[in-house]
Amino acid sequence: MRALWLEGQELSLRDIPEPVAGAGEARVRVRLCGVCATDLELVRGYYPYAGVPGHEFVGEVIEAPGASGFEGARVVGEINAACGRCAACRAGRPRHCTARTVLGIAGRNGAFAEQLVLPVANLHRVPDNLSDEAAVFTEPLAAACRILEQVVIRETDRVLVVGAGRLGQLVARVLAPTGCRLLVVHRHDRQRALLEACGIETCTPGEVSPGLFDQAVEATGSPDGFAVARRALRPLGTMVLKSTYQGQATVDFSSVVVDELTIVGSRCGPFAPALALLETGRVDPLPLVEARYPLARGVEALAHAGRRGALKILVDPLGE
Amino acid sequence: MRALWLEGQELSLRDIPEPVAGAGEARVRVRLCGVCATDLELVRGYYPYAGVPGHEFVGEVIEAPGASGFEGARVVGEINAACGRCAACRAGRPRHCTARTVLGIAGRNGAFAEQLVLPVANLHRVPDNLSDEAAVFTEPLAAACRILEQVVIRETDRVLVVGAGRLGQLVARVLAPTGCRLLVVHRHDRQRALLEACGIETCTPGEVSPGLFDQAVEATGSPDGFAVARRALRPLGTMVLKSTYQGQATVDFSSVVVDELTIVGSRCGPFAPALALLETGRVDPLPLVEARYPLARGVEALAHAGRRGALKILVDPLGE
Repeated sequence: MRALWLEGQELSLRDIPEPVAGAGEARVRVRLCGVCATDLELVRGYYPYAGVPGHEFVGEVIEAPGASGFEGARVVGEINAACGRCAACRAGRPRHCTARTVLGIAGRNGAFAEQLVLPVANLHRVPDNLSDEAAVFTEPLAAACRILEQVVIRETDRVLVVGAGRLGQLVARVLAPTGCRLLVVHRHDRQRALLEACGIETCTPGEVSPGLFDQAVEATGSPDGFAVARRALRPLGTMVLKSTYQGQATVDFSSVVVDELTIVGSRCGPFAPALALLETGRVDPLPLVEARYPLARGVEALAHAGRRGALKILVDPLGE
Repeated sequence: MRALWLEGQELSLRDIPEPVAGAGEARVRVRLCGVCATDLELVRGYYPYAGVPGHEFVGEVIEAPGASGFEGARVVGEINAACGRCAACRAGRPRHCTARTVLGIAGRNGAFAEQLVLPVANLHRVPDNLSDEAAVFTEPLAAACRILEQVVIRETDRVLVVGAGRLGQLVARVLAPTGCRLLVVHRHDRQRALLEACGIETCTPGEVSPGLFDQAVEATGSPDGFAVARRALRPLGTMVLKSTYQGQATVDFSSVVVDELTIVGSRCGPFAPALALLETGRVDPLPLVEARYPLARGVEALAHAGRRGALKILVDPLGE
């Protein structure tokens, strides 16, 4: 089958053997997948990974030995495959399994391919009324939903989302229904227009009032974004780190202590609420699609996703 | 009256006018005060402050216009004097009042003096059975108690306290009664002996198992201590930053995101539980007293407190 293959920061289209479903796993035909900042960081060599990248997908179950009736189902999939036996798994934290493989990120070939394999337990059926284009957003939308599992957001809270790119757009759409006083920091006019079309207020980094916000979500993955979020927080405020950073960041910890801030790292999230937001139309991700490439032009797709201000780039293994 | 005076990193004994109690304030004769790492940082010039330092004290009310019956009471005092009118005060966060003065730290002369002035609302009566030597620990013990307001610690939790100096010793004594699985990282044999005398387990920095602890409290104020605490935490663990740092610290935020850690800054705490711990004898701070100096030798007292591994140094304005 065809797949994008990453090795030593070199991304190329290859023919590789079809994957084989192990015990408890399903083999899935990929219908559509999305490019995420993490894919770009893998290509840049920030994390060691060789294999097929890609972890945002919607697909169709080809076979699921041991899960009869699942064949043909249209599915999305959680990306962490847990061992079920380590201390983290036994403590009910399988997303933090110390022996986990992660689809297209660690130890498991990913979604920029015609087929992939995941544990059946990771798969969620996609409601019939959801298009592939919407369903492919389930994984990043779940990551945005993770914030609501970690932080209590009240209607009276002032919440700042720093960053209006792929992730910031989804975070803003997930937080808006809480009724909080939401403001999103954007850099590009197009980002602003997309948010304003949803009735979400925006501003530029220079327009953020210091010390005013109860919560701030950092969704830029840059030290500049961290600084904007830090400055915006009131004492006893909470910062959610939603993006990974390249390398080390420098922090004035004295000010974190004196202002008694809370900083919360936030990664993958729950699929059920994400699917519900998509199914009910409370979140419409389609305006965030910037381009769609066939898998044969996947290298080009990832380059496009790396442009400043680029929104969601989709890769279609079925397209030509 | 005599007082220690700090100006431009120069600490000296001076004669200054007695303070005057304003509306709602009490004038207090200082009976005993303690030296804290923050005092040393002020002297080193890490924060801009000119005036009398010192904020851990026990004293006796000389006069409290508007609070009749309070004269003669033996008291300890919360150090943040709030305005009562700003957004933080109105929101019920007076310790984070944006217009606050802080005893011996910001805008208000402190406790290394024969007398001080604080709002009556900041004062707490000291139970008769508490000696001055024990009562003077109320403020730092309250800061240790703050952790229990911010983090839920369960009996099954593994909790690491990094640092067994003045603050770490108190933190360990506050956390031990929760019944958690407590381990304290020490550097000096004397620190270890003091903890073992309370039945608290200790280890050296090199003996800390990585990725094992549910919570870690950083009480060293050094980047090394932060690194030990970070390494010790399991995914989804919580780090409490109990010490201020000089300058900037460098953090690998990607690992904070991937492991979904929570980092909580922690400063001043509640006096009532601290007094209760002292009154009931559940915390006995007296073994932590390393030396006692009369105020006339206050400069020497602070120098002593700055020695590596020094424990609590007391300053006695009544002594000769």
